[in-house]
Amino acid sequence: MSDLLWQKAGVETNAKIMKFLAGDDVLLDREFFLNDIAASKAHVEGLANIGVVSAGEMQDLKRELDALAEDFRAGRFVLDERYEDGHSAIEARLTDRLGDAGRRVHTGRSRNDQILVATRLWLKDKLAVLETHCRAIAEVCLQRASQPAIPLPGYTHLQRAVVSSTAMWFAGFAEGFIDNAWRARQTAAWIDANPLGTAAGYGVNLPLDRAHTTQVLGFSRMQISPIYAQLSRGKFEMAVMEALSSAMLDARRLAWDLSLFTTAEFNFVSLPAEYTTGSSIMPNKRNPDVVELLRASYATVAASRCEIEQLLSLPSGYQRDLQFSKGSLFHGVTHGLAALELMPDLLARMQWNESAMRAAIEPAMYATDVAIEQAAAGVPFRDAYRAAAQAATAAGQGRTPEVSLAARTSPGAGSELLLDVLKQRLAELSRS
Amino acid sequence: MSDLLWQKAGVETNAKIMKFLAGDDVLLDREFFLNDIAASKAHVEGLANIGVVSAGEMQDLKRELDALAEDFRAGRFVLDERYEDGHSAIEARLTDRLGDAGRRVHTGRSRNDQILVATRLWLKDKLAVLETHCRAIAEVCLQRASQPAIPLPGYTHLQRAVVSSTAMWFAGFAEGFIDNAWRARQTAAWIDANPLGTAAGYGVNLPLDRAHTTQVLGFSRMQISPIYAQLSRGKFEMAVMEALSSAMLDARRLAWDLSLFTTAEFNFVSLPAEYTTGSSIMPNKRNPDVVELLRASYATVAASRCEIEQLLSLPSGYQRDLQFSKGSLFHGVTHGLAALELMPDLLARMQWNESAMRAAIEPAMYATDVAIEQAAAGVPFRDAYRAAAQAATAAGQGRTPEVSLAARTSPGAGSELLLDVLKQRLAELSRS
Amino acid sequence: MSDLLWQKAGVETNAKIMKFLAGDDVLLDREFFLNDIAASKAHVEGLANIGVVSAGEMQDLKRELDALAEDFRAGRFVLDERYEDGHSAIEARLTDRLGDAGRRVHTGRSRNDQILVATRLWLKDKLAVLETHCRAIAEVCLQRASQPAIPLPGYTHLQRAVVSSTAMWFAGFAEGFIDNAWRARQTAAWIDANPLGTAAGYGVNLPLDRAHTTQVLGFSRMQISPIYAQLSRGKFEMAVMEALSSAMLDARRLAWDLSLFTTAEFNFVSLPAEYTTGSSIMPNKRNPDVVELLRASYATVAASRCEIEQLLSLPSGYQRDLQFSKGSLFHGVTHGLAALELMPDLLARMQWNESAMRAAIEPAMYATDVAIEQAAAGVPFRDAYRAAAQAATAAGQGRTPEVSLAARTSPGAGSELLLDVLKQRLAELSRS
Amino acid sequence: MSDLLWQKAGVETNAKIMKFLAGDDVLLDREFFLNDIAASKAHVEGLANIGVVSAGEMQDLKRELDALAEDFRAGRFVLDERYEDGHSAIEARLTDRLGDAGRRVHTGRSRNDQILVATRLWLKDKLAVLETHCRAIAEVCLQRASQPAIPLPGYTHLQRAVVSSTAMWFAGFAEGFIDNAWRARQTAAWIDANPLGTAAGYGVNLPLDRAHTTQVLGFSRMQISPIYAQLSRGKFEMAVMEALSSAMLDARRLAWDLSLFTTAEFNFVSLPAEYTTGSSIMPNKRNPDVVELLRASYATVAASRCEIEQLLSLPSGYQRDLQFSKGSLFHGVTHGLAALELMPDLLARMQWNESAMRAAIEPAMYATDVAIEQAAAGVPFRDAYRAAAQAATAAGQGRTPEVSLAARTSPGAGSELLLDVLKQRLAELSRS
Repeated sequence: MSDLLWQKAGVETNAKIMKFLAGDDVLLDREFFLNDIAASKAHVEGLANIGVVSAGEMQDLKRELDALAEDFRAGRFVLDERYEDGHSAIEARLTDRLGDAGRRVHTGRSRNDQILVATRLWLKDKLAVLETHCRAIAEVCLQRASQPAIPLPGYTHLQRAVVSSTAMWFAGFAEGFIDNAWRARQTAAWIDANPLGTAAGYGVNLPLDRAHTTQVLGFSRMQISPIYAQLSRGKFEMAVMEALSSAMLDARRLAWDLSLFTTAEFNFVSLPAEYTTGSSIMPNKRNPDVVELLRASYATVAASRCEIEQLLSLPSGYQRDLQFSKGSLFHGVTHGLAALELMPDLLARMQWNESAMRAAIEPAMYATDVAIEQAAAGVPFRDAYRAAAQAATAAGQGRTPEVSLAARTSPGAGSELLLDVLKQRLAELSRS
Repeated sequence: MSDLLWQKAGVETNAKIMKFLAGDDVLLDREFFLNDIAASKAHVEGLANIGVVSAGEMQDLKRELDALAEDFRAGRFVLDERYEDGHSAIEARLTDRLGDAGRRVHTGRSRNDQILVATRLWLKDKLAVLETHCRAIAEVCLQRASQPAIPLPGYTHLQRAVVSSTAMWFAGFAEGFIDNAWRARQTAAWIDANPLGTAAGYGVNLPLDRAHTTQVLGFSRMQISPIYAQLSRGKFEMAVMEALSSAMLDARRLAWDLSLFTTAEFNFVSLPAEYTTGSSIMPNKRNPDVVELLRASYATVAASRCEIEQLLSLPSGYQRDLQFSKGSLFHGVTHGLAALELMPDLLARMQWNESAMRAAIEPAMYATDVAIEQAAAGVPFRDAYRAAAQAATAAGQGRTPEVSLAARTSPGAGSELLLDVLKQRLAELSRS
Repeated sequence: MSDLLWQKAGVETNAKIMKFLAGDDVLLDREFFLNDIAASKAHVEGLANIGVVSAGEMQDLKRELDALAEDFRAGRFVLDERYEDGHSAIEARLTDRLGDAGRRVHTGRSRNDQILVATRLWLKDKLAVLETHCRAIAEVCLQRASQPAIPLPGYTHLQRAVVSSTAMWFAGFAEGFIDNAWRARQTAAWIDANPLGTAAGYGVNLPLDRAHTTQVLGFSRMQISPIYAQLSRGKFEMAVMEALSSAMLDARRLAWDLSLFTTAEFNFVSLPAEYTTGSSIMPNKRNPDVVELLRASYATVAASRCEIEQLLSLPSGYQRDLQFSKGSLFHGVTHGLAALELMPDLLARMQWNESAMRAAIEPAMYATDVAIEQAAAGVPFRDAYRAAAQAATAAGQGRTPEVSLAARTSPGAGSELLLDVLKQRLAELSRS
Repeated sequence: MSDLLWQKAGVETNAKIMKFLAGDDVLLDREFFLNDIAASKAHVEGLANIGVVSAGEMQDLKRELDALAEDFRAGRFVLDERYEDGHSAIEARLTDRLGDAGRRVHTGRSRNDQILVATRLWLKDKLAVLETHCRAIAEVCLQRASQPAIPLPGYTHLQRAVVSSTAMWFAGFAEGFIDNAWRARQTAAWIDANPLGTAAGYGVNLPLDRAHTTQVLGFSRMQISPIYAQLSRGKFEMAVMEALSSAMLDARRLAWDLSLFTTAEFNFVSLPAEYTTGSSIMPNKRNPDVVELLRASYATVAASRCEIEQLLSLPSGYQRDLQFSKGSLFHGVTHGLAALELMPDLLARMQWNESAMRAAIEPAMYATDVAIEQAAAGVPFRDAYRAAAQAATAAGQGRTPEVSLAARTSPGAGSELLLDVLKQRLAELSRS
């Protein structure tokens, strides 16, 4: 246990209490230790700009911060239970190496804004990764939607409804993940506000150069109010979890499709062998475990969001409750991104079983086409519908899936996928 | 019970099953009946553009749709259990008045895209209301932040920390609700996609004029893929609930502050009498019920989101499960907006009890100021901190809240609130 | 708006605030109005026992309470917005009919314990209904498990694994709903504590005869501490929602099975026509909507629980936030019970499609049997497993589902269902 | 990476997929490794009873299982990524030491029932710990409720309502935690069913001696149906989380009280120094962090429950999704129990600040007493209430908290705490 900065003489400590207080805080801090160091450099520059540290001290501090980052990356510096948390570890190292200059580094800041800024930078990084994953998924989906379409039964209520196609299926998820990428970007813009310099939530009696730290850390705006900086803890995390959840919702439905499509009964899809596993008791099994865990990954993300949400019924100002948002956030975001990362390869390599798909298309699935044709020919739709309902199977005789898809001319449908428009939307995201 | 459009001869029905299936669907449909009518008009125009209905039929249908809307608004048309749902009611009315033209109105659409487009329009309306409420709250907060500041204890861990002020408190929530207004707008942009023309989720064999319906309904883009249109059901609702939740999170923390500040122990705030109620047994009580229900309103919004989230573990394509998202959505959104609507008046009229606030500011609250002053004067902060910790009370002797606030020069803090920047951000939202 | 009991002269009211405060409280109170009247009768008896009302007044009050209950049941008394809430309505009626005796009825109680006791009685009623529904479901499942078994593929990971049977499937849900019935009963025992007489949460200066009200209202114990009576608000509701959720979890998995089994691809189950509906656009469809809504009903119950859970982050003592637990509770419990109520008939009448089920049983599904046979014959299981894996299909040649099931002799499996033990457990529940 | 039992030749693996599949499964398995070994011993005995392993093999296997448990406890055997999971590790060790006998140990069981039984045993252990913690908390509360009562303001809506006392406050939480202990026990009885011998969810073709394993593992009943054994995965976990949540709900409200009571404004409670910490920037602060984290701990438990709940929207039969319930369960249960474990000491040593509490009791708090006195003397309560409301402050003149508490004679209130009844309930729990 480290020598706690705030510990006063004469206070007895109790191992269980200390453990409960510490949790695995310091281990979690590894996750954004580099973000904390980056923000510390900006803070030091800001202090130099207002004369609280000298130019020489600033150079020393920045050099040592760079060295610490380097040591951390290389595994030469290990952040562990010897430190109360990552923030203390930075100050301890600087003090150890530089003496008074190190003891000056916390001037004008609090762990409250220190953790806020480190988390904010981390969240921005992760939203960028989320956007990248979503775009990669959309890219693969668009590629496969551009391949020759194979007829696929289209379901509503899990009942065979009308003819669909592999191209329509991929195009649907492509549009979904373009939107998800966009949501990630919107959310990144929304949280792109610098909390560094708000101290414990009430500012300080120093003219901190917040404009400088905002600019040098790459934030698009300053989070002005120290009160609001504290209010945004958890709130911004919730928004990030929502952006991630949007992608996970689509991923879950996609995984559900694959889970069904890989049953023996549907048998529409074959997965590459490495996406399946065997059974400990049943020699005959190959199970689509990756698809199931992809589906289940929504739960992990939802749980993270749940934990943060449950913490936030609080008055304004920092409360220690918020500490628990950290582990939850890291766990959920890391897991969700790992799940999404697997999807492009999975989608690129899954194989359609054309014969099974064709065999599942039955004549009654043309009944809607027939009714609408008659409606287009002048029969009121509701009458055409009734007629088709009475002779659903007969009506479709002689039709083929190809004919049905070719006639599906409504924008977005089988013969009018508008993939160019989707590609353009994706390209616009890439450009901006 | 209406004559069900899809009911086949010989199918027995059972009252309990029918009730379970229907729920209070048709009553809920009142909520977006006007949106459904508006979308139906656009659909009719689209059908006319491709020759499925004649120009004369289009005029008749539009006239009757307008009349229906007028009758509904005036209470002359009541949507109730006589109809299966609002969609059926529209078709029944048109068929009743116009015969075959009415029987043509459902050509090329399904209840699936009909409910999607009506819900989408409703969500856009509600996000606009959310933005308006958030801006109104921010406006009031900025006005009150511009009034002469009264010192207020600043808390962390609910412990007195440093001097804050009424202006800082209001500025914090102002910035929060500016962000919330922005989030509402971002979300509106994200969901601003027209699903009309995607039919049951696979398009139709008609060249529907979706560009026209997109334009005339005021959507900024077409939701291209029919598959994705179905995937977005619930997903877009979740995003709207998240935008609303962001505002509700801040509202809950604000309500918590007021709940504390109106205790006899804090006694910092007095509420207008109409925001309080009495007790059935205790004659001496005046309770801040509105503030408590404002705090509790987060729960209602969270529950709505929860219900939708729980429904969405499904394969792609429409599933009847999604019906339950409707009541939940209406309930949560309506309640959340009603809660936010009360806030501007409450915030404008709550009164600060200056003497109690001043009495709560104790000398030790200047210790941080003292430590930072010494740090600014060259003492390493960590040393200054230790010194101040040992003489926290002594250190603050002779200081006043006003002095402390005046010296708080970090951007966003007591003497540097940057209200102009916040006002400008709010004005930008209003302009765009 | 009623004349509010607690309203003081000179207090202006504002329609929006009043509406927000009232919500649809008085309409919700219809739900347990009879419980409130029953508890009021017990309270009046208790007051008579300690001399606060005379024997004559007690008789008058009880007679009028009975009359009110009768009028309410018959629709002659309508509880609506004319009253602030059901509690006020009772007192107003008694005062109107009996003058001072009516004005005495609230002596020694508060709306706080009045709503607690009415809710508690309502919860006990609903848990009894839950138990009844669960037992009815178990009963049907046991009956159907006792019918001649038809082979059914057994799945893990939705992949065909080993041979199962209709009897095994029904026996599984039978055991589940026996446990669910038991959980309902445990929970009823847990919450079976009388809060009447705890007043606003701190008791009163009257020697209330709580033993009498506890006995006459049928509670098994007194909830002693007034502080705890308040703490149990929401907490006990959560336990009831959990008991209901246990049943709903099984119902959801059962509904999922039926949703799969009624696809054209599985085609194992046919539902009675009244459990299916048609499509507004696709004439060929019959959709298993009831099964989907049964599956979705978990979400409604979960949302109710969520709302209550979100409210409970509060200090001890009554807070107005708790008002919102009422609507949520009624909505979730009522909906969940309605869903469960449909299940016995559905389960009794669903039909198995034997030929499709037999066709889905493929030779590789005997591989586990083969491996275990060899293990029983002395080959180390892991070696037998490897051998069977290499020849999964060949190994099963010549076997039949009947042979496989007959050999499945582990207790609980195909040839050893132990239905008698399950029936005995169900009977024990019925007896006690 | 271990040599995977189920891995077939020629299947390429991919590091990322493998990592996603494995998660930190094997590390989590440490948590119930000893439970897994215990169940393995019972399984081996059962196999011996039906002749699948010889008496000698059984002795060897049991000896080696004991040795493995001993090595694990002593740190000589480390369960880590060298193994796929704990189950594989056991089999590998036995095979390594005993050859064919080891290869026989998995006969007639699957990882599915192996993890079920290990989890079930673990859950039973943890419920026993939960009950113990709850009883310890109730014990301390009863002790402190038996000490001389100090007057404490009683609040509703956080507004001063009537006089309460420290004894009433402790008695309230005592009754709460007695109920929580009882709920833990009920839940333990409910889940006390042996799933071992249900294999992959469909039983096996061996007459497994499940009666023996049920008895030797200390289960009170057999979980008969293999189908239900799988359905109970997650469902039973949810029940355990609910039992834990009941205790955590009370803990959260207690923590909220302490959070308020330790503010400078209330100042009713002082905490032992080790329950507080300092600030990194504000030298004057002592923060009640333990109390805040105790309050926040509900969120961690809720998140665990959320993750499990989100996984369970599945058809019957094992699905890999369920794997994610494990980490979530361990995390939530472990954290929740650690929080509860701190409470007895905290409650035993927190100190009341009598003078501040007395100062907070104001004359208007006697108004209810006055109104009820008059009601007892014959004035209709509603009239007495109106009179007291008009003169709330005057009415209480001359009264003292002691007089008010002494007169509070309703069972459970100030002068009639019925601690003996509570003690008896607690003792009954201890005895049974």
